[in-house]
Amino acid sequence: MELEPRLNATPGTVRPGGRTAKVRAAVLEATRDALVDDGFHALNLDRIAAAAGVGKTTVYRRWGSSVGLVADLLRDMAEQSLPAADTGSLEGDLRANAHLVLDTLRDARMGPVFAAVIAAAACDEECAQALHGFYATRLRTWAAVVERAAARGEIPADTDPLEVLRAVSAPLYYRFAVSREPLSAPDADRAARAALECARAGIFVG
Amino acid sequence: MELEPRLNATPGTVRPGGRTAKVRAAVLEATRDALVDDGFHALNLDRIAAAAGVGKTTVYRRWGSSVGLVADLLRDMAEQSLPAADTGSLEGDLRANAHLVLDTLRDARMGPVFAAVIAAAACDEECAQALHGFYATRLRTWAAVVERAAARGEIPADTDPLEVLRAVSAPLYYRFAVSREPLSAPDADRAARAALECARAGIFVG
Repeated sequence: MELEPRLNATPGTVRPGGRTAKVRAAVLEATRDALVDDGFHALNLDRIAAAAGVGKTTVYRRWGSSVGLVADLLRDMAEQSLPAADTGSLEGDLRANAHLVLDTLRDARMGPVFAAVIAAAACDEECAQALHGFYATRLRTWAAVVERAAARGEIPADTDPLEVLRAVSAPLYYRFAVSREPLSAPDADRAARAALECARAGIFVG
Repeated sequence: MELEPRLNATPGTVRPGGRTAKVRAAVLEATRDALVDDGFHALNLDRIAAAAGVGKTTVYRRWGSSVGLVADLLRDMAEQSLPAADTGSLEGDLRANAHLVLDTLRDARMGPVFAAVIAAAACDEECAQALHGFYATRLRTWAAVVERAAARGEIPADTDPLEVLRAVSAPLYYRFAVSREPLSAPDADRAARAALECARAGIFVG
């Protein structure tokens, strides 16, 4: 039995498209809920179909497995991600980037989602590829802030934009997913300052 | 039936202690093997007891669960970790640190062990605490290289040693566990240079 999918489950989000897009939105919303509550290894397609108000056969046919759900969730997160900052200086843009990462990892909902997809990537190669794709998209989106800074002469012209952005994210993700240390605003500020210092010094050239 | 544990399963390792220490060594060796082969969620105490040549009751009584095995493995890894480098310069010491991290994460055996314990930490709070403890021990061991550099006047006297060391590790672990990008020697060199540049510039003061 196919029920109508739950619409706009997250207040304030409006998605384009017809029934197919609405089914996807409801299933991915239920997948996020399940990841937050129980993690990757407890994902269950029957329960996700029920929570989304979508027929099981639709979920099995379209996503196939919990890996398929996680991979599509990561594609959706990449598609939904916010445009890069444009504050007028590399310092301001990198600080905005660092605080966006901080806010995401500390968010009561998105923090556990990221913990779960990082764990899934450690256990499954298709999830690893999907997580890699998510960060590749994020890095491309934000590369513009580094390219503009190079054009303004703030940093060397041949600076690798992706390396600057990795340098902002890395200390925050290291605390979050590896050394399991608390994250706070000074950590984000320090990550942005360190990336800026190294970019100016030419460490990310080439 | 209690069998004799496998002794010195890794060539070149010699552990002190009597039967208890030998049982622990054999069980942790089997735990590492199981993590490399199948990951945290497939850990099975019966199979680990059999692989270690140790009675099941011993394994259940002493470690209790797969979480207990992973936590003790991380304690053991911290105890076994190598002393910090002392090359005479912060640049040399940080490069040695970066290449130690690189070699560990790229090692055919230790790479999958780290991937598995990072995943375990994302799924279980006791594993997260154990992983945190492992890195806290590693950071304390290597803090001496930063303290010596401050004493030599290479960096500001009030530099936070742990922050310098986190800065070396973070870009490598970010690629390994988060963005899932390949790791190579230039990445380790860049991580060491970036941490050095920021330490000199006073980014890690306080």
